[in-house]
Amino acid sequence: MAGSTDRRTLRRERTRARIMEAAQVLISERGFHDVGVLEITEAADIGTGTFYNYFPSRDELLAAVAEESMEQVGAALDRHLSVLDDPAETYAGSLRHLVLHALTDRVWGGLFVQMGAAHPALMRTMGRRCRRDLVRGIEAGRFMIEDVDLAVNCTFGALVSALQGELNDEHPGRCDKLFARAMLRMVGVTHDDATEVTNRPLPTLSA
Amino acid sequence: MAGSTDRRTLRRERTRARIMEAAQVLISERGFHDVGVLEITEAADIGTGTFYNYFPSRDELLAAVAEESMEQVGAALDRHLSVLDDPAETYAGSLRHLVLHALTDRVWGGLFVQMGAAHPALMRTMGRRCRRDLVRGIEAGRFMIEDVDLAVNCTFGALVSALQGELNDEHPGRCDKLFARAMLRMVGVTHDDATEVTNRPLPTLSA
Repeated sequence: MAGSTDRRTLRRERTRARIMEAAQVLISERGFHDVGVLEITEAADIGTGTFYNYFPSRDELLAAVAEESMEQVGAALDRHLSVLDDPAETYAGSLRHLVLHALTDRVWGGLFVQMGAAHPALMRTMGRRCRRDLVRGIEAGRFMIEDVDLAVNCTFGALVSALQGELNDEHPGRCDKLFARAMLRMVGVTHDDATEVTNRPLPTLSA
Repeated sequence: MAGSTDRRTLRRERTRARIMEAAQVLISERGFHDVGVLEITEAADIGTGTFYNYFPSRDELLAAVAEESMEQVGAALDRHLSVLDDPAETYAGSLRHLVLHALTDRVWGGLFVQMGAAHPALMRTMGRRCRRDLVRGIEAGRFMIEDVDLAVNCTFGALVSALQGELNDEHPGRCDKLFARAMLRMVGVTHDDATEVTNRPLPTLSA
């Protein structure tokens, strides 16, 4: 009996993941506006009825895709970057990883760009972590920031825009270091110091 | 005869301006996706047939709104800011004016935010001017920028995001100086120098 429940749970999880993945690809290509339930179910190869067993509506699925995709990466950053002693390294390293992840996992990158800096899910997942790292940096005397909320907005606005530029480029470069350096300077770290911080080896996110 | 032609030209210009204005308000409120010809003609109080005498399609109107609204402000910045001796003051002053204009003219501000940093019309109008100012600053030894395109993208991404934050705020502050200071630091100006530059009186855009 337990085995059959497990199998059912596993099957449910797999179907849910398939819907999420299909939606992620479609949003990544076209944005949140132009993705309908029918296209998602076709891409995931499931019936419309099945869809509604998992998500009450298109909007709730899109919200779940946005939230979960970001939270997953945010949690990995917490495990490997937030533990560093230097808040400047945490901030810069997190940004470098976000750039590299977006350029490697193009579906995730497309989703990130389509969300845009002001998406509530982005602010809830990445924004609050960035805010925490910036406050840590201010308290440690590492950053010079007059308005933390403005700095968070500028960081993610710049990140979305930088990624948009790279993803549209036929030969995107590895702009992670340059981007992190520009952001460190923005929050008040000197150019030389920012260069030194971004030249430190980047901790990997794998376990 | 000349008088009647003039009157006809004037009337045509007025009708075109009315369509543009109506579209600007609608885009500003809802974004480019959700604005149809019918709503625009209703808001402008003209017939659908009249609409197509002015614009071949909805998309061409939206493109014209984006391009002309930005170009108008860009040209004003050219006249009053590009003439300054210090490229840092041109860059910072232009950004301050864009922030102030967006917070004063909410329709224009909404349009700017809805366009987003990667909109081709924004890059053609504002992006190229920003690029020019940054290159001037590099040549003058005023800025420290490794990748100019990245710096342009970051500037406008941060600007859109900062404005989005302010426009959603019930009590938006005058963040123009803080924003310009952060951007100056981003392009390699020291904190103290950036503070001095943004404390200089801002040239007005009026004639």
